[in-house]
Amino acid sequence: MPRYALQIEYHGGPFAGWQRQAGGLVSVQGAVEAALAKLEPGPHTIAAAGRTDAGVHATAQVAHVDLTRDWDPFRLAAALNAHLRPAPVAVLACVQVPDTFHARFSATARQYLFRLVARRAPVTHDKGLVWQIAAPPDLTAMREAAAHLIGNHDFTTFRSTFCQANSPVKTLDRIDITDRPYPGGREVRFDLAARSFLHNQVRSIVGTLERVGAGAWSPDDVRAALAARNRAACGPVAPPQGLYLVGVSYPTNPFAV
Amino acid sequence: MPRYALQIEYHGGPFAGWQRQAGGLVSVQGAVEAALAKLEPGPHTIAAAGRTDAGVHATAQVAHVDLTRDWDPFRLAAALNAHLRPAPVAVLACVQVPDTFHARFSATARQYLFRLVARRAPVTHDKGLVWQIAAPPDLTAMREAAAHLIGNHDFTTFRSTFCQANSPVKTLDRIDITDRPYPGGREVRFDLAARSFLHNQVRSIVGTLERVGAGAWSPDDVRAALAARNRAACGPVAPPQGLYLVGVSYPTNPFAV
Repeated sequence: MPRYALQIEYHGGPFAGWQRQAGGLVSVQGAVEAALAKLEPGPHTIAAAGRTDAGVHATAQVAHVDLTRDWDPFRLAAALNAHLRPAPVAVLACVQVPDTFHARFSATARQYLFRLVARRAPVTHDKGLVWQIAAPPDLTAMREAAAHLIGNHDFTTFRSTFCQANSPVKTLDRIDITDRPYPGGREVRFDLAARSFLHNQVRSIVGTLERVGAGAWSPDDVRAALAARNRAACGPVAPPQGLYLVGVSYPTNPFAV
Repeated sequence: MPRYALQIEYHGGPFAGWQRQAGGLVSVQGAVEAALAKLEPGPHTIAAAGRTDAGVHATAQVAHVDLTRDWDPFRLAAALNAHLRPAPVAVLACVQVPDTFHARFSATARQYLFRLVARRAPVTHDKGLVWQIAAPPDLTAMREAAAHLIGNHDFTTFRSTFCQANSPVKTLDRIDITDRPYPGGREVRFDLAARSFLHNQVRSIVGTLERVGAGAWSPDDVRAALAARNRAACGPVAPPQGLYLVGVSYPTNPFAV
């Protein structure tokens, strides 16, 4: 059975998250599997690199699927997109991959983007696509706080109590915090990269850093929260609509032309 | 009566355009005037720098209004935003201005942005916010064609037959065409500036340039179309959802802090 890797973009707003849900909740995985079933009798089960939560977006989720027919990858992507309409899910790239490729287990790194908009007036174009706060945060303080989180740590403080990972120890490779003009205010972007993330780790980190940016926490408070290895020491969890899965790395990029 | 200038952002999707319509169609002007009427008995009539069409967006529309009370501008903006909810219209800035300031007649330049996304898969996050085409256009050819339109010309070819301007002669100061990465494709941005624009001028120009980018028209065809001074010589009119009014210039920027 030929195996295909898919790069998938979606607007997380209408979905209960990536993962297929019991009880009829609409998931991105379910939408893609339903589109696959229109092409070849199912059921199909696809595996993905990141199990994004309800409301979280992606521009580069990666999933793989085994099919029986030998599809031209370009036509397979077009057929899936036709069957996915009008759901806000799109297959951006499709390639045939070796049986040894696994979207989740072969991945060597994940990149997430979190978009924060600081202005008083409600956002109109980016409603549901950013987290909005009123006042521009202190970037210097947030960067100083973020530096405490880089490297190999026990991230118990920054993971959901529902996290199913065996270990809370992860290596966080990057938290870049940049800002840019936004109509009537500023946009702040958090770019994070790690081999893998814990459940709610990015939103827990961004929500805590926002408190630092507002002056409510000091950078040293974040160091202490990490050292506490206690979920109760975490700041507020940032809302899902600002978060995007923007990249998944593999030893060899399956989508490289 | 104190006069106030407002910088207004809106998502054009649900509106029949800026201008108040007979027959109950929902306009941005009507939404702002209705919010003003919640603050002071109306009717209020506001004048704006650009009368954007149905579906066209703005990040920096400018309008002015005369009120009877002496409002703190910051509180006036907040009150208007509260009454505008949940319509996708937001007052980004508000200042008191002299009686001599007129949002439309004092304006010395307008800036428009047109966003084009070239990729096969349907857009999800930017649905209704960009014009989507399948293949990346030839930027060099589009820039060569655009150069023919810069300067003082009779733009009869590039204005709607419904245009109410006295003269079709306008000076186009800038058409910058740039591209950038977009998930699964490329985004092309057209930045245009002029003292004022004719009705449908930007969309007529962008729609014609797109034909050049696709190889269907040569840059010289655009020169000939301009010289024809004939609406029938225009290419297709680009759809409204890619267009944004992003700036209005005045002799003195009323919103400068």
